[in-house]
Amino acid sequence: MNDRDRALVIFSGGQDSTTCLFKAVADYGLENVSCITFYYGQKHSAEVQIACEIAAELGVGRHKLINLDWYNQITTNALLDSTIPIEKSPDSACPNTVVDGRNMMFLLIAAVYAKSQEIHNLIMGVCETDFSGYPDCRDVFVQSCNVTLNLAMDWQFRVITPLMYLTKAQTWQMADRLGRLDYIYNRTLTCYNNVPGTGCGTCPSCTLRRRGYDEYMRHREGEESGSDGSGCW
Amino acid sequence: MNDRDRALVIFSGGQDSTTCLFKAVADYGLENVSCITFYYGQKHSAEVQIACEIAAELGVGRHKLINLDWYNQITTNALLDSTIPIEKSPDSACPNTVVDGRNMMFLLIAAVYAKSQEIHNLIMGVCETDFSGYPDCRDVFVQSCNVTLNLAMDWQFRVITPLMYLTKAQTWQMADRLGRLDYIYNRTLTCYNNVPGTGCGTCPSCTLRRRGYDEYMRHREGEESGSDGSGCW
Repeated sequence: MNDRDRALVIFSGGQDSTTCLFKAVADYGLENVSCITFYYGQKHSAEVQIACEIAAELGVGRHKLINLDWYNQITTNALLDSTIPIEKSPDSACPNTVVDGRNMMFLLIAAVYAKSQEIHNLIMGVCETDFSGYPDCRDVFVQSCNVTLNLAMDWQFRVITPLMYLTKAQTWQMADRLGRLDYIYNRTLTCYNNVPGTGCGTCPSCTLRRRGYDEYMRHREGEESGSDGSGCW
Repeated sequence: MNDRDRALVIFSGGQDSTTCLFKAVADYGLENVSCITFYYGQKHSAEVQIACEIAAELGVGRHKLINLDWYNQITTNALLDSTIPIEKSPDSACPNTVVDGRNMMFLLIAAVYAKSQEIHNLIMGVCETDFSGYPDCRDVFVQSCNVTLNLAMDWQFRVITPLMYLTKAQTWQMADRLGRLDYIYNRTLTCYNNVPGTGCGTCPSCTLRRRGYDEYMRHREGEESGSDGSGCW
């Protein structure tokens, strides 16, 4: 446990950031956790409403909402433009939903706000294992951004990414260990088509989430029955 | 001259960025220069109007305006809050007008927009010589931010800061060499109290501008009369 004992969680209401929020509450104590959520014109904007509901259900005292609906003035892609269908070309590692600079924007705004609250720890649910096509989900970006933020504001931030090297299945395991598997399974929204919980089942985000869940369930059943269940744990 | 031959100038309508804009037009050609201006709730918001007028007068084809009036939701200071007077304490290097994260925000938004236009060169009029109290005016911050931007978007940006190591007097000299001394003297707005040209004469920004101008004038007169005019050139 860091001696600087408060944290701000970048929180979207999806599986990953909700898992991080539960972990932050476990690590720092509910009274020391704040969260921040961004609306940026994303198609799955219902996640913002879900984020508000989850933060309230958990009893997070301070939940900041920031409206970035101007983001489509500087770039566009399938997540911001309703005329572009969401798809993933077979020869690309990355679906056409990447929003240039998004994670850097989230980190920067969170950092400015955190400093105003004298908070040093920023927690973000990015992960490079499953999302290798998104450059701003890589650890090298996060580390570099951490240094840049410190230099920009002369403040020692610590950007913490608990899921960076986990598979989706391992993120489900973390939720399970936090005693929150069912809550996250039923309550969070990851689906690009705005369907909470199990989702639409067909968008890239649902496919990834479902595959990870099934893999973790096989592993857990294997563990319960005494075998390993999977070779990759 | 870089082989990637277009540039986006971060442009406020003040002395420094107007000098950079003239330099960019000289270096890249008018048709290859775009600029971007931010409104962020600053007291000297007349600079945004001035920026629009100057860009139009120069004939810059593409001038992007971005409204960041939500910035005071995440931090505050004398530049954003009308109830806090602008001042500079004698024992601080830096007036109370520093806006946390501002230059990183400008660079990030400019970079996202530049990539959407397939532009690599970002030009910014920051300077660490006169503004050593502002952490995000230092070259070490700019260099780090350049790396972070490249990693965030998998795109080779080149952040160019022509004024980084110049004194204010030397920036006036650059304007003079570009044949634009009078234009910049009369037309730009640097003053925190929204007075264009010579300004209110009393705010920290006016004091700095005036001191630099007087110093350059003494130097120029010295040059014209054949002596050095000043030891520091």
